Amino acid sequence: MALRHYTLDFSLSAAADSASTVSSLLSIFHEQEMTETVHDTEGHGYLATFVGKNGRLVILRVHSHGLITIDLQCYEEDNIAQLDNLLNALEKKLTALLNGHITRIKRLPALVRGAKVDRYWPTADGRLMEYDIDQVLYEEDSAYQNIKILRSQQFGNMLVLNGDVNLAESDLPYTEAIMGSGKEDYAGKEVLILGGGDGGILAEAVKQKPKMITMVEISFHGFCSAKVIDGCKTHMRKTCGNVLDNLKGECYQILVEDCVPVLKKYVQEGKTFDYIINDLTAVPISTEPEEDSTWEFLRLILDLSIKVLHPSGKYFTQGNSVNLTEALSLYEEQLGKLSCPVDFSKEVVCVPSYMELWVFYTVWKK
Amino acid sequence: MALRHYTLDFSLSAAADSASTVSSLLSIFHEQEMTETVHDTEGHGYLATFVGKNGRLVILRVHSHGLITIDLQCYEEDNIAQLDNLLNALEKKLTALLNGHITRIKRLPALVRGAKVDRYWPTADGRLMEYDIDQVLYEEDSAYQNIKILRSQQFGNMLVLNGDVNLAESDLPYTEAIMGSGKEDYAGKEVLILGGGDGGILAEAVKQKPKMITMVEISFHGFCSAKVIDGCKTHMRKTCGNVLDNLKGECYQILVEDCVPVLKKYVQEGKTFDYIINDLTAVPISTEPEEDSTWEFLRLILDLSIKVLHPSGKYFTQGNSVNLTEALSLYEEQLGKLSCPVDFSKEVVCVPSYMELWVFYTVWKK
Repeated sequence: MALRHYTLDFSLSAAADSASTVSSLLSIFHEQEMTETVHDTEGHGYLATFVGKNGRLVILRVHSHGLITIDLQCYEEDNIAQLDNLLNALEKKLTALLNGHITRIKRLPALVRGAKVDRYWPTADGRLMEYDIDQVLYEEDSAYQNIKILRSQQFGNMLVLNGDVNLAESDLPYTEAIMGSGKEDYAGKEVLILGGGDGGILAEAVKQKPKMITMVEISFHGFCSAKVIDGCKTHMRKTCGNVLDNLKGECYQILVEDCVPVLKKYVQEGKTFDYIINDLTAVPISTEPEEDSTWEFLRLILDLSIKVLHPSGKYFTQGNSVNLTEALSLYEEQLGKLSCPVDFSKEVVCVPSYMELWVFYTVWKK
Repeated sequence: MALRHYTLDFSLSAAADSASTVSSLLSIFHEQEMTETVHDTEGHGYLATFVGKNGRLVILRVHSHGLITIDLQCYEEDNIAQLDNLLNALEKKLTALLNGHITRIKRLPALVRGAKVDRYWPTADGRLMEYDIDQVLYEEDSAYQNIKILRSQQFGNMLVLNGDVNLAESDLPYTEAIMGSGKEDYAGKEVLILGGGDGGILAEAVKQKPKMITMVEISFHGFCSAKVIDGCKTHMRKTCGNVLDNLKGECYQILVEDCVPVLKKYVQEGKTFDYIINDLTAVPISTEPEEDSTWEFLRLILDLSIKVLHPSGKYFTQGNSVNLTEALSLYEEQLGKLSCPVDFSKEVVCVPSYMELWVFYTVWKK
C-alpha cells in the first residue's frame, strides 16, 4: 500500500503574516477532523502538523521569508477526489488571502512512495524523473548487480541495471549512435562488441552482413551478465530480435567471458578488428578513491582495445550525460594516455528513454 | 530561500516492529538535538516529527503494512553535507536492523521547493520531471497566458507557455516532424503557418525557398502572442534565426492577427495552400465542459484550414503525448466530422525537451 505525497507551495514577494494565514486555513483542517500540533521552530517560522483519519497527515509551514509549504500524505486507497478537494480548498483560500503577493503557486504531481512498481529513476546527472512504468517484467540479483526489466507505456520494455536506465525498446538511436550514426558500412568487416548484453547492437550489426561479429558479454568486476542476456532475450525482443537465442549465428559468436583475457589473447595472436564497440559501462562520474578501480578498468579495456584495432579501424563507445562535463573531460584525458596515440570525435544524441542528452565517442589511431 | 525536501523510504516484506525500529533511530535524532513529538494516528502506524535547529524537520513514519517513510526538510543554505550524513546514518541503521526484510530502499534526489528558478515541469501526461534549468531569461504575463523562456543546460533556451514546455533550442525534431519529417519539398510552394510564434517552423521553411509563407500568429482565445514573438526573437535565436526580426521577408509575411477571420477571408477569395502547418496548440486533453470551447475552436480551425488546402496539399499538426490515447482518439474523431472528407496518418516522435514521445498528424483531402 503506497503513500501518496502531495505538495502545494506558495512563493511570495514578502513574508506572510503567519497568524492570519494559519487562522484562515484552520477551518478547513477542522472540517476534516484533523488534530493539530504546533511545533516550536526557534524562530524559523510557523510549523504545524495535522493528523487525520485513514493515516492522513498535513504539514503546514509558513516560513519566515516569503514561502508557504504544505505537504499532504495519504494512503493510495484513500479517497483521492476528497484529498484533491482539500488541496483545492487550501489553494483557493491562500490565493484569495495572499492576493497580490504571490509570485508562484506550485502543486507537483503526487510522489508515490513505497509502491509495488517503482516509477522514479533519476538521470545520470541526478535529477528526479518519473517514468510511465506499470510492471516489473524481470528482476534478478547477482552478487554485484541488480537487473530489472520494466514495462514503460511509451518506451516499451526497459533494462535497468543497478538503478540506471540502460536501454529501452524505443532506444534505437542509442544503438545507431554507438555504431557510428549510419556513416559506417559493416559489410564484410571484423567486428568486436564488448558488453552489449541486451543484444541491440548485435541485432543491428548482423543485418549489415559483417564477416564476423564477436560479442564478449563479460563479467564486469565480477558482474554476471548471463542474467542480462537471459532477461533480454525474453523481454527485449524488439531490441534483440532472435540473436540472443543462440550463442552462435551465421556471422556472430557470443562469448560469455571476461573481456580482459579475451582481449589479451587477441593482442598476442595479432588479431585485429575493423570496428570495436564498447558498450560495457558509462564513463565513471567521479574520481573518488572507490571509483579508481573503475577508471583503471576502463583504461585497461581501452588500451587493449586500441591494440587490437585495425590501423584504419574505429572504436565506438558511449560517454555519459552531456551535463557531466567533468566526467567527460576525465575520459578524454584518458584517451591522451594510451600506449598508442589516438584522436577522437564526439556526438550528442537524444536517447528517448534517458530523459537527458548523451555523449558518444568515436576513437581512431593517429 | 528554498526548502530542500529529502525522502528515504524502506519497503519491507512484512510490517516492521515500530518500537524497535524507532528506538534504534532515536539516538541519531538526539545527537542532532531534535525535539520529538509522537502523534496518535488512530491505528495507522507510528508517526513522529522531529524539529531541530535551523528549521530542520524530520517526519518518521513506520506504517503498519511494511513501509517506513522518512522526510527531511531543511533550508537550502543549511549544511547539506551534514544532512547527507544524517540520511546516511538513518539508512545504515535501518538497513542493519531490517536486514533480510528489505525489498527496496529508495532515496530520491531532493525536491527543491520555493527556489528562485523552478525546475519542475510535469509532462502532458502528468508525470513529475526535473529539468536542468538555471535561469529565467524572460517572463511576461498576458491576460490569459504566462510566457517564460528558461535556460536549460542541455536543451538550450526553452519556451514554456502556461507551464507547458513548448519548444527548446534542442527541438529541431519537433519542427522537422510538423513539417512532414523531411519527405516534403517546400520549394516554390504556398505555405500557411498557424501559430508558430517561436519562429522555428518559419526559419526552417524559408531555407527551402517556398513561393510564399504566410504565418498567422494569432490571439488564441484572446492570447496575445506578440509577446511570444518578442521573447523568442531575443532568447530563441538558435531556433528562429533572424526571421522574427521583421514581419516581412523575401518569401514570408507574419500576420499578428486572429487566424479565424484570416482563414475565412482566404475561403471567400478561393485562395489555397500547398502546405498548412497548424502549430497553435496541442490537442485538448479532456472533454470536460470547460474544455468544450477548445474543441470547438480546434474543429473550426481544422474545417477552415481544410477548405483552403489545395486538393493535393497536406495539413500538418501536432497531436499530444503518445500516452494520452483518449485525447488522440477524440481528435481523430473530429477528423471524421469535417465538411470535407479527409484521411490522415500519424507518427510518434521523440522531441528532446519533452521527456515523452509526441504524436504528429498529417491530414489530406480524400
